[in-house]
Amino acid sequence: VSIVEGTRARASSTSNAMSPLLERTIAAIAPPDEVVAHEVARLLEAKTKPPGSLGRLEDLASRLGAIHGRVPSAPLVSAIVVAAADHGVAAEGVSAYPREVTAQMLANFAQRGAAVCILAREVGARLLVVDAGVIDPPSLPGIRTAVVGGIRGTENLAIGPAMTRSTALGLVDEGVALANAIADDGVGVVAVGEMGIANTTAASAVCAALLPEDPSIVCGRGTGIDDARLVRKVDVVRRGLSANGLDRPPSDGAEPDPVYVLAAVGGLEIAFLVGVILGAATRRVPVLLDGFVTGTAALIAMRIAPASATSMIAATRSPEPAHPLVLRALGLEPLLDLGLRLGEGSGAALALPLVRAAVSILSDMATFEGAGVART
Amino acid sequence: VSIVEGTRARASSTSNAMSPLLERTIAAIAPPDEVVAHEVARLLEAKTKPPGSLGRLEDLASRLGAIHGRVPSAPLVSAIVVAAADHGVAAEGVSAYPREVTAQMLANFAQRGAAVCILAREVGARLLVVDAGVIDPPSLPGIRTAVVGGIRGTENLAIGPAMTRSTALGLVDEGVALANAIADDGVGVVAVGEMGIANTTAASAVCAALLPEDPSIVCGRGTGIDDARLVRKVDVVRRGLSANGLDRPPSDGAEPDPVYVLAAVGGLEIAFLVGVILGAATRRVPVLLDGFVTGTAALIAMRIAPASATSMIAATRSPEPAHPLVLRALGLEPLLDLGLRLGEGSGAALALPLVRAAVSILSDMATFEGAGVART
Repeated sequence: VSIVEGTRARASSTSNAMSPLLERTIAAIAPPDEVVAHEVARLLEAKTKPPGSLGRLEDLASRLGAIHGRVPSAPLVSAIVVAAADHGVAAEGVSAYPREVTAQMLANFAQRGAAVCILAREVGARLLVVDAGVIDPPSLPGIRTAVVGGIRGTENLAIGPAMTRSTALGLVDEGVALANAIADDGVGVVAVGEMGIANTTAASAVCAALLPEDPSIVCGRGTGIDDARLVRKVDVVRRGLSANGLDRPPSDGAEPDPVYVLAAVGGLEIAFLVGVILGAATRRVPVLLDGFVTGTAALIAMRIAPASATSMIAATRSPEPAHPLVLRALGLEPLLDLGLRLGEGSGAALALPLVRAAVSILSDMATFEGAGVART
Repeated sequence: VSIVEGTRARASSTSNAMSPLLERTIAAIAPPDEVVAHEVARLLEAKTKPPGSLGRLEDLASRLGAIHGRVPSAPLVSAIVVAAADHGVAAEGVSAYPREVTAQMLANFAQRGAAVCILAREVGARLLVVDAGVIDPPSLPGIRTAVVGGIRGTENLAIGPAMTRSTALGLVDEGVALANAIADDGVGVVAVGEMGIANTTAASAVCAALLPEDPSIVCGRGTGIDDARLVRKVDVVRRGLSANGLDRPPSDGAEPDPVYVLAAVGGLEIAFLVGVILGAATRRVPVLLDGFVTGTAALIAMRIAPASATSMIAATRSPEPAHPLVLRALGLEPLLDLGLRLGEGSGAALALPLVRAAVSILSDMATFEGAGVART
């Protein structure tokens, strides 16, 4: 068996072990509670408005109830988790920004100067900043560290695996642990965001492997790269798939192992967010996805545990070309379509008021009977 | 000259007098300040994010600056004006609800039980409830009265003019006065909403006359009417246009006089909101439009004073079939598309966090220089 053949076998295997925490997390994901969804719809029918006149806000309220497993009540406590990490593939010149910007932005998050910080404050959400493997991170208060085995920054995915399976699973576990802590704190919706120079390259590679799609279809301009860099990005993803035995579907016709793909061409912050998403699903906390990179983490989560998809809500549609494909795979229609492509959880933060409003309407609006308003 | 010929002459005339307040208001509308718009764009370029990555939020910030005539600063004080009135055309059975629901909902607004009340609180906006001519209004605190000549409820537009020109202009003046009071209070964005059983019939008739379009194109299901009522609604609008000499374009080829159309087939709350919109435009306060009925008020405002259109922002796209036509005439692309069709200002309230976020980003986000983040 050649090295490439061996790699292919690994890529297609789904028998590789998960961590015990992840096994338990996956096993504990419950389906959405449709009885609650109907109860929410019934309660909304009694509110002083024409039936269905609040459109998707009403569907959202039912959806939140089904995820929670009980009728939600206002105020809905919300948190935003933004995870940052570095990417070895940045050395290929696939981003418009130098690698050092990841650490600089982590400092900006800690000092509450970044977009997501302003938006979190604006919408009244807690902001949790996570260093999931940033090279030379700032020493500042307000940063949680989720680093596994001292790994800061992935290897260059264009040459070989970005990280080991063990590192990937370690970070997933860290994410699950944070989701559990968030759920214990009574958070009713968690928004996820990310930062990491070159991470749309990693996300594109993950999509190319999992959807699957040709690299030319799933690569976009990320932070705003020019044509030359975009051509290079497509080539880097193509080389990365090849170097990791992901350039052809598994020989047994099975879907590629999502944890293998995550470790091979993903990112440390992406692995962490996979854990947050799965952990939140287990704890019945709805997950508000941001843009393309968090959508890719959600795609991995869904491939690991299909039942987790019912806990997800898509905040925005990104101009990244792969994002609509990811949303389709997840079965999600975003709440906002405003051309947002910053990441950081900024789009999810902007959609949070809609999620909270859906619960407030359900919780606080008068009924026809209570307000003495005639029905049809 | 026959009576119908005389009506036609009146419908096409644009020489009919406005009120002195309205004349002054129209004359004082300034064009958007493009120098400020460029200054806002320049400031956003310095923020710690890839250029343009906040998409329409960045355009919105520039737009708000151009309307204000200065760089906006957070927090943006916001108000929601919801105006209610009754419609004589309700007697034709064009709504799913009885006429009495207008007064009952006015009470619901005052008692803070309606959707817009919950949403106003949720998004931190002041709510101003205006009785612009509700029959048998509740005696409750928290309602402003803007009734002209004791007129409560319009006449049936299917038979003749809904109101006199003098009543329409009186209500427009009342709206201008409220906009002035709001501007004096330092409000930086005003959202408009409405309530009035049968008011989508009036709005459809206004659209049919002003766009112009056939009644079958501009009538929708409003509160959720069935096929039989929809057929009746189209017929009522057709009869209303005919009874008011608006069934054919003016013989001189001119656009119909918007104040004539407003008085003939509009509504008291629509007239009031035309005034709020024009008054806000004069005072450089951006107006956040809700759905179809407020869009129709905006269309009348734009026909009275074309320069007012640059002060408008569309919050939502309504499922009412005429709304996209109205938005196209206004040159507006809505921020949200969530199937909302309640009115009351509920959609505008849901878009307010986006407007406020645009200003907070501009006002509070760190710059590359300030945060020590490298540029490309």
